[in-house]
Amino acid sequence: MTNQGTPRVVIVGAGFGGLNAAQALAKAPVNITVIDRKNFHTFQPLLYQVATAGLSPGEIAAPIRSILRSHKNIEVLMAEVTGFDLDRHTVETPECEIPYDYLIVAAGAGHSYFGHDAWEPYAPGLKTIEDALEIRRRVLLTFELAERQASSGENASPLNFVVVGAGPTGVELAGTLAEISRHALAHEFRSIDPSRTHILLIEGGPRVLAAYAEDLSRSAQEQLNRLGVEVRTSTVVTQIEPGAVYAGDTRLPATVVLWAAGVAASPLGKSLGVPVDRAGRVQVQPDLSLPGHPEVFVIGDLAALKDEQGKMLPGVAPVAIQEGRFVAKVIRKELGRAGALPCSRSLREGGDVDVRPKFHYWDKGGLATIGRAAAVAQFGRIHISGFIAWLSWLFVHILFLIGFRNRLLVFIQWAWSYVTYERGARLITGSTYLHGWTADPCAPAKAAQPAQQEIHAGPAK
Amino acid sequence: MTNQGTPRVVIVGAGFGGLNAAQALAKAPVNITVIDRKNFHTFQPLLYQVATAGLSPGEIAAPIRSILRSHKNIEVLMAEVTGFDLDRHTVETPECEIPYDYLIVAAGAGHSYFGHDAWEPYAPGLKTIEDALEIRRRVLLTFELAERQASSGENASPLNFVVVGAGPTGVELAGTLAEISRHALAHEFRSIDPSRTHILLIEGGPRVLAAYAEDLSRSAQEQLNRLGVEVRTSTVVTQIEPGAVYAGDTRLPATVVLWAAGVAASPLGKSLGVPVDRAGRVQVQPDLSLPGHPEVFVIGDLAALKDEQGKMLPGVAPVAIQEGRFVAKVIRKELGRAGALPCSRSLREGGDVDVRPKFHYWDKGGLATIGRAAAVAQFGRIHISGFIAWLSWLFVHILFLIGFRNRLLVFIQWAWSYVTYERGARLITGSTYLHGWTADPCAPAKAAQPAQQEIHAGPAK
Repeated sequence: MTNQGTPRVVIVGAGFGGLNAAQALAKAPVNITVIDRKNFHTFQPLLYQVATAGLSPGEIAAPIRSILRSHKNIEVLMAEVTGFDLDRHTVETPECEIPYDYLIVAAGAGHSYFGHDAWEPYAPGLKTIEDALEIRRRVLLTFELAERQASSGENASPLNFVVVGAGPTGVELAGTLAEISRHALAHEFRSIDPSRTHILLIEGGPRVLAAYAEDLSRSAQEQLNRLGVEVRTSTVVTQIEPGAVYAGDTRLPATVVLWAAGVAASPLGKSLGVPVDRAGRVQVQPDLSLPGHPEVFVIGDLAALKDEQGKMLPGVAPVAIQEGRFVAKVIRKELGRAGALPCSRSLREGGDVDVRPKFHYWDKGGLATIGRAAAVAQFGRIHISGFIAWLSWLFVHILFLIGFRNRLLVFIQWAWSYVTYERGARLITGSTYLHGWTADPCAPAKAAQPAQQEIHAGPAK
Repeated sequence: MTNQGTPRVVIVGAGFGGLNAAQALAKAPVNITVIDRKNFHTFQPLLYQVATAGLSPGEIAAPIRSILRSHKNIEVLMAEVTGFDLDRHTVETPECEIPYDYLIVAAGAGHSYFGHDAWEPYAPGLKTIEDALEIRRRVLLTFELAERQASSGENASPLNFVVVGAGPTGVELAGTLAEISRHALAHEFRSIDPSRTHILLIEGGPRVLAAYAEDLSRSAQEQLNRLGVEVRTSTVVTQIEPGAVYAGDTRLPATVVLWAAGVAASPLGKSLGVPVDRAGRVQVQPDLSLPGHPEVFVIGDLAALKDEQGKMLPGVAPVAIQEGRFVAKVIRKELGRAGALPCSRSLREGGDVDVRPKFHYWDKGGLATIGRAAAVAQFGRIHISGFIAWLSWLFVHILFLIGFRNRLLVFIQWAWSYVTYERGARLITGSTYLHGWTADPCAPAKAAQPAQQEIHAGPAK
């Protein structure tokens, strides 16, 4: 259905940046190809709810095809992009090369363990639905194993959850884990007392939520304490091993460790052949294009750009959304000028690239949730804490959830769980055994795995 | 919290049978231990909706602890039962032995490939949430790969879905696959036409839904045809290999094969040391107890029992539910007679076992759904087809869904998808690559897997 001769815009990644760029280009005279490794868009701000069994994956994710269905000039491909040939204007995948006239790279970011990749198996991060399910599995399984131990008369070891990194994700995780153990699970176990779970939030810097004003950091820390979270700031993790986290020489026992400390841009950034910063982000021009390649844009968490005050733009959804829309506008404008000519050609032949506007981020403020009725919000000079901040957070996030259906369902889900403290998605799927990510209290359990598969004649997964 | 001296009832398996037994014993003077390999109960009649992306796992499953939370005499353990010592009255798990006075084994059933276990990787069955997610992954991935192929100019091979076995599960799967490809996905692809997907339902016997009356079988087959499913009865599958199913010498090309033909009882049945039938079901006494062990009951899909007419009771939820309640009643009655004494002791000492009543199954009728507004229902002599049958099916299933919250959500979900044809849970999670389960159209894709993991610094799963 692609018209030959119509310029082709290829968008790599269907996160907030990529999707918004595609939607803003939907009415332009271009053919658009959106490529993603997954068939669905993930609403990342609510991933922690999946990790803590409040929502199901299907409630915070929507098929990319569904979202873009009504735009006939957009084609969606599920494929793994392995690199680019900027000279030949192609995107490389294992199956084929995809030519482009304009390229928008919005491949996002993953975790960084600051050179300690060996910690990853013991301290998973939270960037994808799969990550969230793995965290959910570990958290729920920990309670189940402790109950089993205690029931058979052994002394159950105390449950210690350690969250490393007190940015928004770390704060959300720690706050929600406290809630779960003190409320959702409180009356469901007979031999252990989940409300005695110890939750420790470790931060290397001097305060939690460092991107917010100091008074909000203080408030956030107080709200965390009220929920039952112990916070240790200015504490650098030096080692993680099964069953423990080390801060300097201090050994902190840890049944489950979650990593919310570092972000690394997608390796696709490096493959563009231009300078990247320490976090692997591509240093883009003020118009978000690649130096020397005005037809290639990098947006979202993969782009490194400073604002007018010289402050690096943060890796948050609003930045990616605005960048996606900005780039789409630039392309639309140039197409209007160049007619139906492939624009990149006109560009390479000396188009007026230097008249392009600079990207300007409009900061509408920030919202970080901590737990039930606990949050902080910063809108310019207005700083709010507690219930009102939490309501704002809830409102904004439900409003922006992709797709009406999900919005309604998520709202009902939350109304329900607010009243009942119930968490409905508490399923342990996948392996039901520990795999060396903690000090294994039931070592023989591992040996039993073949028996499980035997009893369960399902397909190997 | 377990009182010493109070008789202990151990229930293995928290399916329909086990859960109903536990609930019916909740007010009796016993301590109950419910053991399951999973931490959640699965509402199996709606598994096909998860397999076909209509519902999320969290919507048809509920944590066993949540369901039984209010009963303080019930303890729930997530553990793998590996066997029994009937003489010592213990249940064996890899971690410990659990003593019982009464034992109820409700371990259910898995798939049977009739001796062709090698077919399993190419033709997964549908018994667990994990099975459902694997089928969902294959079905959705097939469309994605075809689109990718077609987009890069290759001739996409035609899509053939083959479902083996036309019992209720096979009929549901075939009908719903037809619906998805003709409606939900119809306008979402640019290079392929999902509505041209060929869906073939193969049945070894002479008619579909053989457990129903002949006129309903005919009606079901007509409704399937109307939905676009080709049905071949009296066709025995002789071989399954990647990309094809053989019926005799006829090779039927098959992009995705689903297995809904055979059921095998849990191997735990055999470990009870009494005769089992060909499907591995335990031949129980008329009171559902084990010959020679009046304190051990086997219920649900694991039990083989004939009704008054000599017809084997079917492996359906109502049978398991009624059996669970019956066994609980027997135990309650004997406890009342024996006082607080461990009843098994009084039984072994020559109690009046022979006065136990026989289990009688009250058949309220059967309902099988085929697709949107398509179903059959048989209530005694009343046979219904089409929309009214489908409404009855919907009503009964939503009514019986465990837990109010899920009921409401599932209802909204279905109302929404009935109006819009939308299927919300279309997420491909886990591996996004083919693993030899079909004729692989993109062989190089496999080689690309390490690259994927590199880009995505998530934990290995």
